Amino acid sequence: MPLAFDRRLVNLLELEHPIILAPMAGVVTPALAAAVSNAGGLGSMGLATSTVDAARQMINAYRAQSNRPFNVNLFCHKPAVANPAVESAWLARLRPEFERFGAEPPSQITEIYKTFLDNDEMLAMLLEEKPKVVSLHFGIPSADKIRALKAAGITLFATATNLREAQAVAAAGVDAVVAQGYEAGGHRGVFDPEAPDQQLGTMALTRLLVRHLDIPVIAAGGIMDGAGIAAVLRLGAAAAQLGTAFIACPESQADDGYRAALRSEAAQHTVLTSAISGRPARSLSNRFTALGATVSPKDIPAYPIAYDAGKALIAAAKAAGETGYGAHWAGQGAPLSRAMPAKELMQELVTELEAA
Amino acid sequence: MPLAFDRRLVNLLELEHPIILAPMAGVVTPALAAAVSNAGGLGSMGLATSTVDAARQMINAYRAQSNRPFNVNLFCHKPAVANPAVESAWLARLRPEFERFGAEPPSQITEIYKTFLDNDEMLAMLLEEKPKVVSLHFGIPSADKIRALKAAGITLFATATNLREAQAVAAAGVDAVVAQGYEAGGHRGVFDPEAPDQQLGTMALTRLLVRHLDIPVIAAGGIMDGAGIAAVLRLGAAAAQLGTAFIACPESQADDGYRAALRSEAAQHTVLTSAISGRPARSLSNRFTALGATVSPKDIPAYPIAYDAGKALIAAAKAAGETGYGAHWAGQGAPLSRAMPAKELMQELVTELEAA
Repeated sequence: MPLAFDRRLVNLLELEHPIILAPMAGVVTPALAAAVSNAGGLGSMGLATSTVDAARQMINAYRAQSNRPFNVNLFCHKPAVANPAVESAWLARLRPEFERFGAEPPSQITEIYKTFLDNDEMLAMLLEEKPKVVSLHFGIPSADKIRALKAAGITLFATATNLREAQAVAAAGVDAVVAQGYEAGGHRGVFDPEAPDQQLGTMALTRLLVRHLDIPVIAAGGIMDGAGIAAVLRLGAAAAQLGTAFIACPESQADDGYRAALRSEAAQHTVLTSAISGRPARSLSNRFTALGATVSPKDIPAYPIAYDAGKALIAAAKAAGETGYGAHWAGQGAPLSRAMPAKELMQELVTELEAA
Repeated sequence: MPLAFDRRLVNLLELEHPIILAPMAGVVTPALAAAVSNAGGLGSMGLATSTVDAARQMINAYRAQSNRPFNVNLFCHKPAVANPAVESAWLARLRPEFERFGAEPPSQITEIYKTFLDNDEMLAMLLEEKPKVVSLHFGIPSADKIRALKAAGITLFATATNLREAQAVAAAGVDAVVAQGYEAGGHRGVFDPEAPDQQLGTMALTRLLVRHLDIPVIAAGGIMDGAGIAAVLRLGAAAAQLGTAFIACPESQADDGYRAALRSEAAQHTVLTSAISGRPARSLSNRFTALGATVSPKDIPAYPIAYDAGKALIAAAKAAGETGYGAHWAGQGAPLSRAMPAKELMQELVTELEAA
């Protein structure tokens, strides 16, 4: 008997399975995305932190490995506002950390990538390349950008962490909403990082959005296996988005330190921290999240200016053999991570889903 | 086709449906618990804040309305350690709140109810009355108490909020673990309120415990309808525990202010606060949670000493017509609450579960 669930999305995107790879920037490779798509899911790539050229190269690399639909993800945060006093105090705060590894903090930190809100060249590239899906995180772009993307035949997803954000997503004409539960790894998609975070778990958020919206809901956060996928389909989701489940695949960019952390006790203790990038993101607990617990959010530079320092510290530590400062983004399901090729993992997920 | 799920608990307790009423002290009445049990679920009552006599009366009142199995809940927190300096500073801090309602704070606050860890009379009453299930929150009692309860034929449940707590529950010989997700309303069951809270959502926690433990797992948090129940059964849970879903039933003790808050925008904004009772508990956002956001946890007296002041402030405000200080415990699913008699709600849940 075929599973009964909201098939609008799998029909629209011609997917065999309601399984979406989360577009983890810095983790997903074109090979990983292509493997998921070729196995009947929707491969996704995070382009938000890439230059337009690098983003186009990733799309080309994907297309060399798959002719199936794919999703690319862009960040719609407000442009960073520099604050030299905060930035220099932050670098001074980090100086002892750098010195521990015989390094110096950068003399200056900057907005290392542009928000999609301001990136007309990225938009032009997308309108040329026409990926099947563009997904948006941290907010939604202007009506004319949305109109242009839709006119190019692109399906749009956008993340929401509460009902109000989801209603804004639906009202903007976005085709499907990603219900990002509190369990999820990586950056919280909250539109306004200054506002109180409702911290809605995947169970509560998914059901709330399904009950209140007409557009398909994609559930994300804490989903690690076929039972998790089956559960969110029962909640009314049209698909499940899995990120942490794929980090340990050989096709991911995760380095050895990240993979070792994922297998360690740290997987039981994920933490939301702003200290690495300037916005709250869920990471395996490590030395950087421990540092984050000692600082006040107001002392951290704006996103992604803080990430310039964060990446420098991660690199300095790693060069000295210390992997404990990595941006080890992971969700609360981390202890259920499996290290296997993405194609095999997809087969496992589908088998488990059919059994559940 | 009957639903396929872990039937160990429904078989053991002779339930018709894998639905457990959460034992909300101060909200559940014997009539509410009996209605849930009579409809084929497991009714539960919170006895933790009652005297032994009042607890026995609740059991008797239940038995006058149902001959089906039921569950009573006790709190296993460490005994409160009084700290007169903290307590008087706290009362001084609350004085302006009381004065707003023409009232005075109490001159002194005390441990208004005993932990079950120290309550041998409560144990003796339970061994006499022999409820089918005793559930434990905030920890587990000594091995001899567990042995005595099990020797009396009582089935034991205990709450866990992470894998380590759940492993302790299973190792102690408790029969089933309540996986209390971060979504859940009321008091977080964390064993050690001083330790960092892993904040695991229902989706991640339920699956983690199902995969790691041999005993049945009861999922709690964010479950408001049959789809939610179906979802957690797919995760491998043996039953779903619902609290917030039943608050608006006419049989509950919730007062008009609580019911009105549940229907209001506040339902979209639940908050964990320690300010009301001294331990983190999830409440609809209101004036008391707003006050809680302005104080440091270390300034709040120990649980339940702080609750003595909290209850006095709630009563003073309510006497003056201000309901915004209530202990409006609720989970993140609050916007999906339905006001209908418990028997009808149970019928709806079962119909939805069968359809899901």
